[in-house]
Amino acid sequence: MQAMRIDRGNLADLAAGAAFLGSGGGGDPYYGRLLCEAELERSGFFELIALDALADDALVIPCGWIGAPTVSAEKLPSGREAVAGLRRIEQIMGRPIDAILPIEIGGGNGLAPLVASTQLGVPVVDADGMGRAFPESQMTIFNIRGVSPTPSVLTASCGALTVIETGDSRTHERLARALSVALGGIAHMVEYPLTGRQAKDHAIAGSISTAIAIGAAIRQAREAGEDPFEALFDALRASGVYPHAGVLFDGKIVDLERETRDGFSIGRVIVEGFGGTGRMDLEFQNENLIARRDGAVCALVPDILTVMDRETADSITTERLKYGQRVKIVGAAAPAELREARALSFVGPQAFGFDEPYRPIEQLNEWGRT
Amino acid sequence: MQAMRIDRGNLADLAAGAAFLGSGGGGDPYYGRLLCEAELERSGFFELIALDALADDALVIPCGWIGAPTVSAEKLPSGREAVAGLRRIEQIMGRPIDAILPIEIGGGNGLAPLVASTQLGVPVVDADGMGRAFPESQMTIFNIRGVSPTPSVLTASCGALTVIETGDSRTHERLARALSVALGGIAHMVEYPLTGRQAKDHAIAGSISTAIAIGAAIRQAREAGEDPFEALFDALRASGVYPHAGVLFDGKIVDLERETRDGFSIGRVIVEGFGGTGRMDLEFQNENLIARRDGAVCALVPDILTVMDRETADSITTERLKYGQRVKIVGAAAPAELREARALSFVGPQAFGFDEPYRPIEQLNEWGRT
Repeated sequence: MQAMRIDRGNLADLAAGAAFLGSGGGGDPYYGRLLCEAELERSGFFELIALDALADDALVIPCGWIGAPTVSAEKLPSGREAVAGLRRIEQIMGRPIDAILPIEIGGGNGLAPLVASTQLGVPVVDADGMGRAFPESQMTIFNIRGVSPTPSVLTASCGALTVIETGDSRTHERLARALSVALGGIAHMVEYPLTGRQAKDHAIAGSISTAIAIGAAIRQAREAGEDPFEALFDALRASGVYPHAGVLFDGKIVDLERETRDGFSIGRVIVEGFGGTGRMDLEFQNENLIARRDGAVCALVPDILTVMDRETADSITTERLKYGQRVKIVGAAAPAELREARALSFVGPQAFGFDEPYRPIEQLNEWGRT
Repeated sequence: MQAMRIDRGNLADLAAGAAFLGSGGGGDPYYGRLLCEAELERSGFFELIALDALADDALVIPCGWIGAPTVSAEKLPSGREAVAGLRRIEQIMGRPIDAILPIEIGGGNGLAPLVASTQLGVPVVDADGMGRAFPESQMTIFNIRGVSPTPSVLTASCGALTVIETGDSRTHERLARALSVALGGIAHMVEYPLTGRQAKDHAIAGSISTAIAIGAAIRQAREAGEDPFEALFDALRASGVYPHAGVLFDGKIVDLERETRDGFSIGRVIVEGFGGTGRMDLEFQNENLIARRDGAVCALVPDILTVMDRETADSITTERLKYGQRVKIVGAAAPAELREARALSFVGPQAFGFDEPYRPIEQLNEWGRT
């Protein structure tokens, strides 16, 4: 990939594409986009660099927000959180940051580093740490590959700053989660500091440009009066990262349970097919995790599972689900790195307490077998 | 006070006296004493220095355990927590620690710094940060007098280390509490780093030697077949810090509610007088907070309120209260520093959600008016 800029021309596409990859979570795409637009008023553009353009000895910092998406849509940031955390990690590491990247690609967290990047004067790497969004911080490819989460810096709108200096990845998640809850339900976190070499070896490459391509494909199809879902699937396949995708179900939301618990949005949604053609239920913890069609599993984490408006193909995050929405439920194969045995121990169904063994989405659905 | 040593000869007196001053909390005196005894096997004695012996520019670090006392009696420490936190604060402050002191005087936390002191090779100051024990970290004289709680270091038996770098005293408490819960219910904390000047200006002087004197008085009276309660009251008055003390009630525990909630032991105990002579109820949050005799308030936080075995005058912490125990409930005036208007806003009844205005214990009880 060439050096690339994000500006008013492609920001909306990025927001739409990141919201899809977020699998129902990853932060609110509407606020994420508003914050970027406000920053673009000052900076004009955001600079993106390719993963393979990083020097081996670069200091590369993943960052994003931790907390319940429901809270993020109500408790707005001060705008100083990210820079405070990133400046602190520079002091701790004893050198300036060379680039930052989203810890996950999602509507909020896929865009948040853009705002921080111009405030800090560093580019954003076209990559992320999950290839989608996950609810817990140890569910990153960096942890799966053995990188330490610490030192990690949490900052909040009140000005509080906390450094988790040592702790394994699960302890780190537990501490960060507890801090985010104590800080009002949401905090900014920089974590898993990387060398350029580590970033190149482990990060999911091309996440941001893929998100832009997905968003553009949906928008262009809609403008041309074509099927935006087919355009989405073509764009996913063309990415090389998400080789299978299709519609899992088409219907109306008839039931929704959702609560904010232990720092997460946790719940279940039931969609009924039009004309009595069965039902699908989804369970979510910030992100959608499992889909069952008439009781039979047809998609399992880490594969991507997103509820979309059936007319516009806008992605609907779990905190924006409502009774009566007419939706298509779309699935896509996760990046290959997340489907390896070690990865599944961190991000597979059992990591979320489900009994069902992981099976690839393309094996569970007709469209995947063609 | 002369330089003083704590050894096998006076450790039990210190443990007994600190348990009384802990007002029902401040950690378990039995485990606190066992840990000191184990350390004395190696070190022979603990060195105590007087508050006024500190140089103005000394680095003086308050420390202790944060968490629910119920947990502290079940989840034993690794023994490395205190030194890990103290060594880290030395790095952060850029200089060696000159002395440490208990953040509160109580059965566990009054003794814990002794163990750390020989491991670190520094003396313990004969003083503390509360003149008793309180459940929350902002309830220290250092916060009341405007000292910053940060930088503060939390360490746990699993090896996790977290630094709260900025945050006001209530945010600091909220974050530290959340971390202690996430770490299994208990963590070691160093906080409110002080200069020698600040320690001398603000700390409650003589806490450890007062605790030893109290413990010795009770023991000697018991050995001489005299009333240990009268000996306790004499020792408290002789300290100059606790000018009023007396028995509030004498009876049997007939009801007890206690649960571990939000990182605290919270509950209520009801004591019935012998021969139908009324009843007393106490409410506690780690420490005993309020006593009502037949519904009328007769002791309010910050005054000291301790349940003691009516025969031995052993102090019974809130987590060791049991149905059927025959007890005397003893009250004592808090140090004068805690009764000032600003102090009461942090440690008075309203700080704990009670409606009753603070009234000094000596005005609420016959024995105080003589």
